[in-house]
Amino acid sequence: MPTSAAPIPNRSAEDIIALRRQHLNPSLSMSYRQPLKMVRGAGAYLYDQDGHAYLDMVNNVCHVGHCHPTVVAAGQAQMAQLNTNTRYLHDNIVEYAQRLSATFPAELSVVFLTNSGTEANDLALRIAKTYTQANDVIVVDHAYHGNSPTMIELSPYKFDGKGGRGRPPHIQVAEIPDDYRGRFRKEDPKAGVHYADDLHCAIAAIRARGEKPAAFYCESVLGCGGQVVLPAGYLQAAYAHAHAAGAVCIADEVQVGFGRAGDYFWAFEAQGVIPDIVTMGKPIGNGHPMGAVVTRPEIAQAFMTGMEYFNTFAGNPVSCAIGLAVLDVIQQEGLQAHAKQVGDFLLHGLNEMKKNHALIGDVRGTGLFIGVELVRDHASLEPATAEANAVIEFLKAHRILLSTDGPHDNVLKLKPPMVFSMNNAQEFLMRLDQALSQIS
Amino acid sequence: MPTSAAPIPNRSAEDIIALRRQHLNPSLSMSYRQPLKMVRGAGAYLYDQDGHAYLDMVNNVCHVGHCHPTVVAAGQAQMAQLNTNTRYLHDNIVEYAQRLSATFPAELSVVFLTNSGTEANDLALRIAKTYTQANDVIVVDHAYHGNSPTMIELSPYKFDGKGGRGRPPHIQVAEIPDDYRGRFRKEDPKAGVHYADDLHCAIAAIRARGEKPAAFYCESVLGCGGQVVLPAGYLQAAYAHAHAAGAVCIADEVQVGFGRAGDYFWAFEAQGVIPDIVTMGKPIGNGHPMGAVVTRPEIAQAFMTGMEYFNTFAGNPVSCAIGLAVLDVIQQEGLQAHAKQVGDFLLHGLNEMKKNHALIGDVRGTGLFIGVELVRDHASLEPATAEANAVIEFLKAHRILLSTDGPHDNVLKLKPPMVFSMNNAQEFLMRLDQALSQIS
Repeated sequence: MPTSAAPIPNRSAEDIIALRRQHLNPSLSMSYRQPLKMVRGAGAYLYDQDGHAYLDMVNNVCHVGHCHPTVVAAGQAQMAQLNTNTRYLHDNIVEYAQRLSATFPAELSVVFLTNSGTEANDLALRIAKTYTQANDVIVVDHAYHGNSPTMIELSPYKFDGKGGRGRPPHIQVAEIPDDYRGRFRKEDPKAGVHYADDLHCAIAAIRARGEKPAAFYCESVLGCGGQVVLPAGYLQAAYAHAHAAGAVCIADEVQVGFGRAGDYFWAFEAQGVIPDIVTMGKPIGNGHPMGAVVTRPEIAQAFMTGMEYFNTFAGNPVSCAIGLAVLDVIQQEGLQAHAKQVGDFLLHGLNEMKKNHALIGDVRGTGLFIGVELVRDHASLEPATAEANAVIEFLKAHRILLSTDGPHDNVLKLKPPMVFSMNNAQEFLMRLDQALSQIS
Repeated sequence: MPTSAAPIPNRSAEDIIALRRQHLNPSLSMSYRQPLKMVRGAGAYLYDQDGHAYLDMVNNVCHVGHCHPTVVAAGQAQMAQLNTNTRYLHDNIVEYAQRLSATFPAELSVVFLTNSGTEANDLALRIAKTYTQANDVIVVDHAYHGNSPTMIELSPYKFDGKGGRGRPPHIQVAEIPDDYRGRFRKEDPKAGVHYADDLHCAIAAIRARGEKPAAFYCESVLGCGGQVVLPAGYLQAAYAHAHAAGAVCIADEVQVGFGRAGDYFWAFEAQGVIPDIVTMGKPIGNGHPMGAVVTRPEIAQAFMTGMEYFNTFAGNPVSCAIGLAVLDVIQQEGLQAHAKQVGDFLLHGLNEMKKNHALIGDVRGTGLFIGVELVRDHASLEPATAEANAVIEFLKAHRILLSTDGPHDNVLKLKPPMVFSMNNAQEFLMRLDQALSQIS
């Protein structure tokens, strides 16, 4: 009995918005005052229902480019062949575990697969707690580690944000090592070490509770914190403090991993450390729901308490085929080196622009993960939040998609698909220059 | 620059096992003493590397049949077109939300999308806690609701199982309403009501803590509990008690939803109740990582605290295209009625077999979700765990895949893809008869 999927109506933006209001999660916000209806993606571009091309500078999920043909073909072929769970033997999962672990220092050789970055951070916590037999966790201020109940408890971005219930007692928040806005600035060569000293307070607070720290979570470049590059020496010193207190160190590479940082495949490498656990998500499957955890064999072994970690979907042959294709494309197209080249060009152009536009307070980043912080005053650092939003709307009118982040929502966050080209970068710099001229 | 995915080596079972040991989650167990390497799936069959066909009676994830062409085609087409997040407008997500909510009673009209059943149950808890402003939860003994830290705290199957840390103080466990093995048996027409009375104890324990119940979670047919069909009246009475105490009632349909129960599209309907929240996973995307939560508008509105629920992958156009195709196939192929027909045939055949095989203690189920409990003695109900395992290995030798479940691991669990045919059912009954004859 042949069947075929029923055609999906082509609705107007207004009708879609009305149906969202009626049938979808009402807490889900849309991008832009006038949301866009996108119907197609290719490379660094999204196309709306009228065929207009938008340059996508905000999507670090479609990592190797929207609908990359190699990734699409790998997913299509495996979907038609087999999609089942990991209780059977399959080539794809072991090939993927081997290939993924080969991108890490040799110590990090054991892979756990999940369906999202949230599930990866959740699993990392279970592993850390089991290994350390401890309960408390140290996180960095303004961090976001996921949308599950456990990760919201761990994310100052959420628990201190709108609707948040504040810091839970088993979580300690370390000062954000922001060397533009924080206590220690760029001109201090020891800023990283000074910021890391704040972990002593967190550890002392945990001990005062009669508890021990299980883990120190830190994104390798801070995302929701405002695209903040960690000052030199921060992770080395912070990891030393955490390890001395018995905690494991977890690098959250959900936003910045897989070559985006340019100089390194994993952004933690720039800090000269080897984490105990690394978590991955967003770019890992170019949009396909996937996540992963990698850790040391001795930590993985300690997790063998008799309680299995089985995940119905994770590690299935389709997800692994897609994950493998993403790794292939990054390598074959030299996307890490490309991110370095285009990222350096953007950083240079933005720093030049800073000389002419007082709104630009700070330019920072690594590879294709860049933040441009807008301020009204270079002494007080008063956030130029409305101006940042005006930039976003100006760029939208010129069909460039960008968004803001940071505690004051005044940081332009650049994290385009990795195929973002030098021409794309030039176009963006020209339009940003226009936007800043018009707004200031 | 054209790229192509690197070929994936075709490894022997031994090599795959060795690589799993080296690079994969060591807590992940494999099916069977001699694990199978599966390379292809179609309909109700999996095929090993030598081309042998195995009848799959254990996979309720590949719901409309392995690699169903309609579902595969929908996923393939959308993958090549666009896969991005829900901050843009798209037809697929509103079509899916509308179509999915149309399968529920009118009260349940608001859909939240996730990447897994675990994420769905995690989100349901956040919603329930926000709506009720309460913290404690009542669950049914032996229940499994997911692999996240929060869901392990909520799952007696996990926290009372190997490596478990026992019941957390904010969780109360209600007696399992098992009318074969429990306090109240099938001959008691009020068994359901009596079992539901145990919620009074749970509620009293929560009040004694000075807390209130946020939610009562219950699978609509109990899975890890041993494929237990809820006695008539159980959910009506249990929901009444939970509601009176201020809790919301959450139906976990991750295992049994989407027509599998035969008589109804959602298994809770057999109990004459309307839950406040329903969670879905496994079959929703025929193996694609997806999950969903549906709830009442007033509960969804109460979740609007300012804290957004945004999920990077969930609700993307590919997942929604696949989810829509699954709904289309269930409807077009009449799979719910088919599950009823084949399920009734199996139940009848199994009940006949029970007359000749003393090992069969109980036959129960609904549609294509059936449990056959094996016991050594019909009075003491001593579990025939080793015998159940011998049945599984006998069937494997005859290329039928089945597994066991329940607190004593003595329940054969039948939950094949919904395209499982009458011929398949006849073959299974014949082989099971042989297995029981040989073992007893």
